[in-house]
Amino acid sequence: MNETSLTHPALLPVGLRDVLPPEAELEARSVETIMDCFAAHGYQRVKPPLLEFEDSLFAGSGAATAEQTFRLMDPESQRMMGLRADTTPQIARLATTRLASAPRPLRLAYAGQCLRVRGSQLQPERQIAQAGIELIGHDTAEADAEIILTAVEALAAVGLTSISIDLTVPRLVLHLLEDLPAANRPALARALDRKDAAEVAELDGPIAGLLLQLLEATGTAERAIPALLAIDLPESARIQAVRMAETVAAIRRQRPDLPLTADPVEFRGYQYHTGICMTLFAPGRQAELGRGGRYLCGDTEPATGITLYPDTIVRVAPDQKLRPRIYLPFGTTPEQAAACRAQNFATVAELDAHSPPLEEAARLGCSYIYKNGAIAPLAKDLK
Amino acid sequence: MNETSLTHPALLPVGLRDVLPPEAELEARSVETIMDCFAAHGYQRVKPPLLEFEDSLFAGSGAATAEQTFRLMDPESQRMMGLRADTTPQIARLATTRLASAPRPLRLAYAGQCLRVRGSQLQPERQIAQAGIELIGHDTAEADAEIILTAVEALAAVGLTSISIDLTVPRLVLHLLEDLPAANRPALARALDRKDAAEVAELDGPIAGLLLQLLEATGTAERAIPALLAIDLPESARIQAVRMAETVAAIRRQRPDLPLTADPVEFRGYQYHTGICMTLFAPGRQAELGRGGRYLCGDTEPATGITLYPDTIVRVAPDQKLRPRIYLPFGTTPEQAAACRAQNFATVAELDAHSPPLEEAARLGCSYIYKNGAIAPLAKDLK
Repeated sequence: MNETSLTHPALLPVGLRDVLPPEAELEARSVETIMDCFAAHGYQRVKPPLLEFEDSLFAGSGAATAEQTFRLMDPESQRMMGLRADTTPQIARLATTRLASAPRPLRLAYAGQCLRVRGSQLQPERQIAQAGIELIGHDTAEADAEIILTAVEALAAVGLTSISIDLTVPRLVLHLLEDLPAANRPALARALDRKDAAEVAELDGPIAGLLLQLLEATGTAERAIPALLAIDLPESARIQAVRMAETVAAIRRQRPDLPLTADPVEFRGYQYHTGICMTLFAPGRQAELGRGGRYLCGDTEPATGITLYPDTIVRVAPDQKLRPRIYLPFGTTPEQAAACRAQNFATVAELDAHSPPLEEAARLGCSYIYKNGAIAPLAKDLK
Repeated sequence: MNETSLTHPALLPVGLRDVLPPEAELEARSVETIMDCFAAHGYQRVKPPLLEFEDSLFAGSGAATAEQTFRLMDPESQRMMGLRADTTPQIARLATTRLASAPRPLRLAYAGQCLRVRGSQLQPERQIAQAGIELIGHDTAEADAEIILTAVEALAAVGLTSISIDLTVPRLVLHLLEDLPAANRPALARALDRKDAAEVAELDGPIAGLLLQLLEATGTAERAIPALLAIDLPESARIQAVRMAETVAAIRRQRPDLPLTADPVEFRGYQYHTGICMTLFAPGRQAELGRGGRYLCGDTEPATGITLYPDTIVRVAPDQKLRPRIYLPFGTTPEQAAACRAQNFATVAELDAHSPPLEEAARLGCSYIYKNGAIAPLAKDLK
């Protein structure tokens, strides 16, 4: 790596990249379409800074991001700062400080870049765009459903209408595991992670029986939820199961058609979550479009939120139309140029009168040319 | 500062801030309006990463940003990276590497955040939003004028129609100073900076005469340009003066009304510029909305560009209308909610049926409520 970088000084660090035309514009448009949908659902935009002190960045749910955060010394205060690796902890800080007295439920939205120290095999990118919402101060299935349905609507607004949603309740299994001797937990956690019923069965005892039934209670929500509710769970786990059923019901009241699966055994990757969690997938399930879940804001206030990933969204969303390019030969009047832009063309002005306009138009990627006072498509053999 | 920070752990580092509603949304909208105007003029959006290797970040015109750049070790490559303090050097890198064979003139646009190690008294912010354009590969007054007029149109699109523009040619005076003994230059530079004609006159010799005439050749373009062209300048300085006149003429052909001032003596703050530079001011001149100028892209290719400052723009631009908020009592159907959003309302859904809706609507900052199947304004005494 080092040698290659030194011989090609323009090379970017691993996991960082230049987004070129037209992708950069498509991504920016997708973000604004998503943010407009969030605004339409009453989520008000905030913009926390890219850098803040690490002790505020890593408070509460932010602790989970500490390992992935670039750190910097602030020359002004001599204190350590971090470059945000995730936005949700910053929103939680805002909600508990400057917006502590704002009325609840508090609905906030954000869009911006995050940076991570290392990429993973699954996600090599170290700069990640995020666009998300947080609903703070309400602990109901209605709130969980609102977050999910708003994200689904935002994705539909960028052309992604066949989303599937996975619901999980990571605390459910964690509550059951708490009743086991600590030494047994890691092996069992791995077995559950692999959905390995045979290995779970080896555990023996009442917990094993429950876990085996839970492993069966997965799949479409219509199949999983009745199976889940039929299991005789201890109280703390049962509360999570009931909330999952209520959330599915709340979603179904608004969107009976939405592809919804439930997996009450899944718990990995949700470090600070306290209730219903969700992952949104593109059709065919090759791409994770967003994820989120319920957590405690400032360690005490109920909250839920979801983050969408614009980099992935722009890769799987259907192409949006950008302005077609029209070449304006030297001498085109300002009024004529403005008229072309008003008709949604991107005007490309000739800056001197030295070159044959048709060839220039083609060379500069235009599909139209302005001539004799009119908009003319460029001949196919020139384009 | 340190003591205050420790007793208020939520405090952000100096020069970094949370942007709250409605400002965050107004800023994002202004940026997209500006970017749409840039796209309409054929400038294609790119998005370089926030972090890159310092040797590429500080190449060419980027050298001027080295002192203001936060540096980080990349754990992947063990090489130093910088957090961009300015976007133009990244665009220049792109133009000379991945877009080296893209047709010229190359028109690129960008929008994003920059971070700086220290704020100044004039600009305490350390995170600065930028939205800009670069026109690469064309060394003409038409190109200089296009950059300025496109920026002016972008500002008009966000409601800033009374912009004034200062044109400078920093190389002109620098060429003259080169003919002086090195020891005399600093004092003279300071005198010119203060427009102190008396001190310039003390210098004596032919250069002093020229500089005194240049000090007189400032003000509105209509006054300054003829005065400037009447001065008997040496060739290298004269080229700059003629280009300034040509640029004013190119602007005037499109916008005879634009408030345009010229100051051929101003040269501070333009470190790497090689030709016409411009600063855009809001009415009353209290705020700098953007600045830019001509430079060499990759040390050899002629280029010009301008950066607008959305933080400042949103502060001085007339208020845009955001969606009015309407409260949807529990039980409002999804179709009714969608109909409100289609009429450009931001819907605020009640999540349970426990509270009196009118009081709740008022408490949550709504100015409308949905009741009896219709949109009703909230009584004034409740709002």
